[in-house]
Amino acid sequence: MVKALIFDVFGTVVDWRSGIAREAGAIFAARGLTADALAFADAWRAKYQPAMQQIRAADRGYVALDILHRENLDATLADFGLGDALDNAARADFNRAWEKLPPWPDSVPGLTRLKARYAIATCSNGSIGLMTWLAKFGALPWDAILGADIARDYKPRPQVYLASAAALGLAPSQVMMVAAHNSDLAAARAAGLKTAFLPRPCEYGPGQVDDLQAESDWDVVAADLNDLADKMLGP
Amino acid sequence: MVKALIFDVFGTVVDWRSGIAREAGAIFAARGLTADALAFADAWRAKYQPAMQQIRAADRGYVALDILHRENLDATLADFGLGDALDNAARADFNRAWEKLPPWPDSVPGLTRLKARYAIATCSNGSIGLMTWLAKFGALPWDAILGADIARDYKPRPQVYLASAAALGLAPSQVMMVAAHNSDLAAARAAGLKTAFLPRPCEYGPGQVDDLQAESDWDVVAADLNDLADKMLGP
Repeated sequence: MVKALIFDVFGTVVDWRSGIAREAGAIFAARGLTADALAFADAWRAKYQPAMQQIRAADRGYVALDILHRENLDATLADFGLGDALDNAARADFNRAWEKLPPWPDSVPGLTRLKARYAIATCSNGSIGLMTWLAKFGALPWDAILGADIARDYKPRPQVYLASAAALGLAPSQVMMVAAHNSDLAAARAAGLKTAFLPRPCEYGPGQVDDLQAESDWDVVAADLNDLADKMLGP
Repeated sequence: MVKALIFDVFGTVVDWRSGIAREAGAIFAARGLTADALAFADAWRAKYQPAMQQIRAADRGYVALDILHRENLDATLADFGLGDALDNAARADFNRAWEKLPPWPDSVPGLTRLKARYAIATCSNGSIGLMTWLAKFGALPWDAILGADIARDYKPRPQVYLASAAALGLAPSQVMMVAAHNSDLAAARAAGLKTAFLPRPCEYGPGQVDDLQAESDWDVVAADLNDLADKMLGP
């Protein structure tokens, strides 16, 4: 029945917080800046949903996430009192930190196993380019890059899930959305997709309180991507 | 300078004529039909450019190639006097022959080598779905599926090349178009891309007269995709 699995990426497949903090820390150290790299990562990411919300609400036409990330970087640097510390070229380079996020340890082996039976694709709010370079960085073996850019809207708007299924020539019920976020799966289910949850309890660091467990009867609940492969491929 | 290679697929990476003839031959044999499978493949493919031309000329809104292929299949069956031989489900299945085309022998090893240094992506007139399933059939290791579907127009319209480069966050001059068709490269060059030619002298069978050699000073001319990897990766 299910022919393709489509994946949330930030948090579900890659560890954005460690990756952004590592890049930020290197950039700050090279300039003798003393800002807290993890706090910077959290603050930059905190501007993510509000920025997309303008586009979901049609207060702004679609622009790729790279542009929102850059606007949010500029604002975060100002918030941290670093508005004069990085020029335009340095900020453009910093913004590419989102292309250099480490996969969770189970991501590449789990995806590789799933790819043998299913089409596997991104269904991220990241752009085609961001997702492509991120996949090259982490050796993520996607069959296709789907998601926000092909729908020209942001999750959890239904069009993002529906356009991703349609791009593969599949009905929504033939596609399973995989995410570490209950809200993403609720939207995918409402659009007619199958759903699989796996927790990433340290995505937001040791104090994480949301998405520690499945909050609905998702079609599959797995411990990680290797366990999802076990469950989807059978013995 | 060049960061990504984007590829024509039908003819350049896969052997559509043998693949379509094999599928057609199996379908005809199973029904006791005596139509010439290679002639059928050539006739079906002959309707490809005229169908896309309607969309390039804006006489028709964009529809994915799968739909054009199906319309052309219906017409080709009628031309061969087979209009009553296949029902709708059988035609839908036949149409998926385009997802089961064999790669040329050098395609997978050449692409795999190129992928280690460059982003490699399709820039085909095939849809995202068609290209994704075709890649799974032949183990083509694309980093991304670009081309007509993301541009919502057909090569050689410039937007297809430009949208493919832009999707990767690259300038046209950072992207090299690889094709076995001089006309495809001429359009890519006019859009600002780098160009690489390799001949596929049997794409149209033993009587092929076009595209037997490079007809301009393309940036790279290679014997096949392994030779392209030699030339792009150096010693």
